Amino acid sequence: MSLAEEWWGTAVSRVEPGVIELRGHPIQDLIGRLSFVEMIWLLLRGDRPSPGQAALLEAALVASVDHGPQAPSIAIARMAATCGVGLNSAMASGVNALGDVHGGAGQQCVELLAEIVASGGAVEAVLADWRDRGVKYLPGFGHRIHDVDPRRDPLLSLVDAAVRDGVVGGEYLRAARALADALAPVPMNIDGATAVIYAELGFPAPLARGLFVLSRSVGILAHAYEETQQGRRNKSPLPPSMLPPYLG
Amino acid sequence: MSLAEEWWGTAVSRVEPGVIELRGHPIQDLIGRLSFVEMIWLLLRGDRPSPGQAALLEAALVASVDHGPQAPSIAIARMAATCGVGLNSAMASGVNALGDVHGGAGQQCVELLAEIVASGGAVEAVLADWRDRGVKYLPGFGHRIHDVDPRRDPLLSLVDAAVRDGVVGGEYLRAARALADALAPVPMNIDGATAVIYAELGFPAPLARGLFVLSRSVGILAHAYEETQQGRRNKSPLPPSMLPPYLG
Amino acid sequence: MSLAEEWWGTAVSRVEPGVIELRGHPIQDLIGRLSFVEMIWLLLRGDRPSPGQAALLEAALVASVDHGPQAPSIAIARMAATCGVGLNSAMASGVNALGDVHGGAGQQCVELLAEIVASGGAVEAVLADWRDRGVKYLPGFGHRIHDVDPRRDPLLSLVDAAVRDGVVGGEYLRAARALADALAPVPMNIDGATAVIYAELGFPAPLARGLFVLSRSVGILAHAYEETQQGRRNKSPLPPSMLPPYLG
Amino acid sequence: MSLAEEWWGTAVSRVEPGVIELRGHPIQDLIGRLSFVEMIWLLLRGDRPSPGQAALLEAALVASVDHGPQAPSIAIARMAATCGVGLNSAMASGVNALGDVHGGAGQQCVELLAEIVASGGAVEAVLADWRDRGVKYLPGFGHRIHDVDPRRDPLLSLVDAAVRDGVVGGEYLRAARALADALAPVPMNIDGATAVIYAELGFPAPLARGLFVLSRSVGILAHAYEETQQGRRNKSPLPPSMLPPYLG
Repeated sequence: MSLAEEWWGTAVSRVEPGVIELRGHPIQDLIGRLSFVEMIWLLLRGDRPSPGQAALLEAALVASVDHGPQAPSIAIARMAATCGVGLNSAMASGVNALGDVHGGAGQQCVELLAEIVASGGAVEAVLADWRDRGVKYLPGFGHRIHDVDPRRDPLLSLVDAAVRDGVVGGEYLRAARALADALAPVPMNIDGATAVIYAELGFPAPLARGLFVLSRSVGILAHAYEETQQGRRNKSPLPPSMLPPYLG
Repeated sequence: MSLAEEWWGTAVSRVEPGVIELRGHPIQDLIGRLSFVEMIWLLLRGDRPSPGQAALLEAALVASVDHGPQAPSIAIARMAATCGVGLNSAMASGVNALGDVHGGAGQQCVELLAEIVASGGAVEAVLADWRDRGVKYLPGFGHRIHDVDPRRDPLLSLVDAAVRDGVVGGEYLRAARALADALAPVPMNIDGATAVIYAELGFPAPLARGLFVLSRSVGILAHAYEETQQGRRNKSPLPPSMLPPYLG
Repeated sequence: MSLAEEWWGTAVSRVEPGVIELRGHPIQDLIGRLSFVEMIWLLLRGDRPSPGQAALLEAALVASVDHGPQAPSIAIARMAATCGVGLNSAMASGVNALGDVHGGAGQQCVELLAEIVASGGAVEAVLADWRDRGVKYLPGFGHRIHDVDPRRDPLLSLVDAAVRDGVVGGEYLRAARALADALAPVPMNIDGATAVIYAELGFPAPLARGLFVLSRSVGILAHAYEETQQGRRNKSPLPPSMLPPYLG
Repeated sequence: MSLAEEWWGTAVSRVEPGVIELRGHPIQDLIGRLSFVEMIWLLLRGDRPSPGQAALLEAALVASVDHGPQAPSIAIARMAATCGVGLNSAMASGVNALGDVHGGAGQQCVELLAEIVASGGAVEAVLADWRDRGVKYLPGFGHRIHDVDPRRDPLLSLVDAAVRDGVVGGEYLRAARALADALAPVPMNIDGATAVIYAELGFPAPLARGLFVLSRSVGILAHAYEETQQGRRNKSPLPPSMLPPYLG
């Protein structure tokens, strides 16, 4: 292998004339046989999920697609879509906002759950440690809008079933429930529930953010496209009619 | 509805405390019941696909996830991932490059096919019109690397079957085949094949780009994450050892 | 020169150990001697501006730095800055929105002025041609907010003086004034005035957008940084208190 | 002030019909009177720099505009520019890569210098503290390419002169020199030198990154524009001819 090939070497894909292999599989063997979610798993991890694993991942991806136009990622994409850029750039603008605060809670919660599991369930000690480190917003708990996030319990029920069926081990679910007990009455939120799924499925923490991005990109696209159909140009955050008369 | 609500009004989603509705459906009715691809369809269009429609969309999304690290979108994401930004920003950088030239061929090909269908199959007249407009690269045909793109025929076979089964009408497939005859020996490529699917399924042209972005985001994530595991900092396009000795 | 060097070859800069040359000048000969605006000119064009040329460019760059937080580029950067990304990513999000509609008017107006100049001043014919092409918003004229943009006349006065002093030729200024007569009472706006400057200085049209981006980046940074000092997280476009009670 | 105005309230700028005020100054009083660098200072800080302060800031901005096409930010912008997006989006892609590793060293070095100054010059103690925190790459020191960065000494000479002239106090310069002594023979680099300037001028650390972004945006623009003039489409990191024969 040449230096050039080595520098850009990858285990993800191989491309030659007439050949596209993804994680070692010719693409023509995958089209029509693999679901999109199975492809996501394959590309990120190199192996294929069992049906039960794929179903859990599918549920997490379905749950996070959208949380309304007041979410900054969605609002940004809608505004960008009125400024004369392609849909890809409008989407990029939205995705770019899914940073540590907006898109990182799942990743941080996977890390938190992993610490609890590694500590043998010493929830209070782990919490003390996080607070010592100055963490003010514990990931996966609390919400500005929902007392009980309607996405949480359906997801946790699916994890419960998956534990019963031996699809996943359940240790991260138990850690999350112990954490919820310790933090009551602050409720577990969607990031907590999806973190349980991603952790149970064995995804490393950074991919919890990556998977959230894939999911939320669907809502970002739906909103950006809808906005382009409304004909506005240079959409501002406030409606012109709400601004002082001089901007009316 | 207040002015503020109107300005940010949307048919995509509704959020209240304890309530998340997507296209009118409570999210808890969708989690665990809808596949991710069905959710993509629902959010973009407002209705639900038939199983046959979902299968076609799934195949198109599976086919486009990755085309190797020399694709600028992938290379950009890998480089960005070594510069100290979150995975979301590395992904945004890659998605942002899926512009008219890199990510727009599917969209343009849907438009081309629609013109041919609208013209009653007057391929030569439509082609003359596009050439008159100065179009140098006809979308959906030709490829820098592949003589026959290995993704094309599996996709077209699925469309053939879907036409036979009455899942889709087949007029865009016929237009594409007539176009292929007119352009032979320049081969139809992946963008042509996915454009046939998106057009047959009734997606407006801009969403062909949007759907390609959703698909390619998977590869962008897989590559960006892999790159973060290799420990490079500020990855340059050429390996340092290939640069002149003074940069070695 | 190796293939690798050729592929990434550039006339802009040359870097070796201990050596940084910009457009052929050792960087140490430029630091402390060139103004930032002269450096912008040098890097974009390869030569150095006369003092009069630099002053005109300086004025155009000063004029466009900010137009308030309701401009989508600024609003987007402020929102992104609350989402847990670095200032560079908040700035990138704002810059990314300076597309054909939001940031492209200067570029388009340079093209329009160039067509008028090339036509020997046939304003009506050029206008008819643009309208035939379906252009609805003529670049450089009209404004949603200002009847007379307060930035316009100071800029045009500087161009007038520069024409008198022989710094620039004045043909684009005359074209713009003829255009303004033809379009009256729709007023020339800031994009028209800066387009005159960029065209008089000999910048190709796409750099009119590029220079606007450099200028507006200053406002984007100032706003994004100010926002980070206010402690909001995931800033939404509407204040929570203006949303329906359930989101309060 | 209404809730809406408060939510988007800012001290940076005020816009009304016929009125644009930046930091309280009518824009028409600034055009033609303020240099671009003075405008940068005004917009970021609210006051105006002395000539000596402006000269120091100007030098730092001039020094960082470009470091060749192998810098990821530049390479990314060049690649993006061939993918069918506007120059603004190509620039955004480059700027987006100026993260903690690629664009954050100046910011981190200002923090480091501030800690040393606050400690009364206890360089060793501060260094021990940073190492305890797991910092592997001390910001502002060392370089992959340059033993002595040719930008460093011209900048430090200007700071020396500014200290002599009473333009700045010199405490951060002294801290940086004490740090350099402690770290010898690892040399101070450009980020160290600009950090000294930004710290001496009183900019908060995050603005060191922001100012670097403004400076580097010039090089990003120059390179992206040059690339668009070369006619490539979908530029890959390696030249096709260097890839294995099958990709030739």
